[in-house]
Amino acid sequence: MRPDRTAELALLLEVAGTPKPGNVDRNRDLKDLRFEHFLAGAVGARGGLEMAADGAPVGPSFQRAVEGMAEQEGGNTQFGALLLLVPLVRTARVGDDLTRSATEAVVESTTVADAAAFYRAFDHVDVFVGDPPADMEPLDVRRGSDAIPALEARELTLYDVMDRSVPGDDVAREWVRGFERSFAAADRLAAAEGPILERAASVFLSLLAERPDTLVAARHGEDVAVEVTDRAATLHERDVLADDRPAVEAFADELVDRGINPGTTADLTAAGLFIALEHETVEV
Amino acid sequence: MRPDRTAELALLLEVAGTPKPGNVDRNRDLKDLRFEHFLAGAVGARGGLEMAADGAPVGPSFQRAVEGMAEQEGGNTQFGALLLLVPLVRTARVGDDLTRSATEAVVESTTVADAAAFYRAFDHVDVFVGDPPADMEPLDVRRGSDAIPALEARELTLYDVMDRSVPGDDVAREWVRGFERSFAAADRLAAAEGPILERAASVFLSLLAERPDTLVAARHGEDVAVEVTDRAATLHERDVLADDRPAVEAFADELVDRGINPGTTADLTAAGLFIALEHETVEV
Repeated sequence: MRPDRTAELALLLEVAGTPKPGNVDRNRDLKDLRFEHFLAGAVGARGGLEMAADGAPVGPSFQRAVEGMAEQEGGNTQFGALLLLVPLVRTARVGDDLTRSATEAVVESTTVADAAAFYRAFDHVDVFVGDPPADMEPLDVRRGSDAIPALEARELTLYDVMDRSVPGDDVAREWVRGFERSFAAADRLAAAEGPILERAASVFLSLLAERPDTLVAARHGEDVAVEVTDRAATLHERDVLADDRPAVEAFADELVDRGINPGTTADLTAAGLFIALEHETVEV
Repeated sequence: MRPDRTAELALLLEVAGTPKPGNVDRNRDLKDLRFEHFLAGAVGARGGLEMAADGAPVGPSFQRAVEGMAEQEGGNTQFGALLLLVPLVRTARVGDDLTRSATEAVVESTTVADAAAFYRAFDHVDVFVGDPPADMEPLDVRRGSDAIPALEARELTLYDVMDRSVPGDDVAREWVRGFERSFAAADRLAAAEGPILERAASVFLSLLAERPDTLVAARHGEDVAVEVTDRAATLHERDVLADDRPAVEAFADELVDRGINPGTTADLTAAGLFIALEHETVEV
């Protein structure tokens, strides 16, 4: 399968995996963000994923993917996931093996033009982000394409922008850490047992147990993010998905009720699904 | 959105609609045929749907779509739905309005080569079909490409093959009745209320209530198919999806337990979703 199609399937499997505490999944909708918005978002992202698979640069491919993703009524569904998937698809298409070092080479070769396209992507959709550090204020992504002159004046590549977004954004952290957790998630998916959607749920919980979700931290504060991770860790250690599914279902419902959505953890799960499918270490 | 993408989204929304009594849906798997197989089937069908959107003939586009659909472990997921969607996509791409008469013109112009490609599609996947009439035995679709010489000797087009498959196959019936029920399903989707997945479930029940499902009849006999339709009609008249959801959920579970899967009704639902999305009378 072409890597753009594999990426689309990864997005679909990610949202279908259940229970994924706090997020839309096969069994849960949020109030204005429902399962079908993620299905339409995945189909809409096709054009940009195809560009990356055909060898287009990362920035414009990402912008196109987000533009298509946003053509549904739910708003932002898969912005962070696409920010991981686009460079992974770009790497897989090279014909080289999809390795951490090959992916690093792709993100390190991004340009100022890629960064400008990344900023333009914010014109298409509302993405929740926290306040930037004072010296990055002119480059606040919420400015969208209005920030491009400042970006060009500082000659920042998309890799540089990601580098300046760490800490506080664990999607950006993947870019500067060689997609460490994405590849780890793929390994865990391969090692897990059962159908792919159960594996996806299990790996989501393991990722949530590992580090506080940065989207939760930005929205609700670090304390809440740490609380969620501590509770996920307790559940993960007890292997609840195998032994006490009601406990994790209850945790999932509670987070949805509280409006706590670990979106970054979902993004990493999607990236892990793509890598595992591409390596053929999991099957559907 | 290009019609091939709309068709893929229709396949995804169809399987996600719930409850769809007897079939895989957002809340139900069968033993060896699970939700994720339909997700992968929809992504796999992309190549053939793209061919149809680019103007390729119906038969080869269908063959390619089925070949891609079959690249997952669940077996046949969307064969019948694709047999409706491919000519609809081919019609929508012409730039004409997607009307019943335009779709009729597309299916009536199919050739012997389209029929040969249709038979080749059976080489890729096991599709459940009943025994053909005695004079059609050399053209039993279960022969796959081995039947092509007999097909060519009789100079049958794909439209002719569909014509000879009625009665007993309500997908074929759509071909010779100007996609009557597919367009009716689209009208009902537009007239229904609520999110798209609830509309899909409602229209599925209305279709099941209307005529015995031909896949159920082929597998379990006409009596069972009639019983299922009578019960669906009773539920549909009571507007259970609005007023007594547990009743329809119980019916859905019972059919799954009995192994009764109204697949033809699901195919018609997918076709209706495509038409309604293409006409922009429903939104996601």
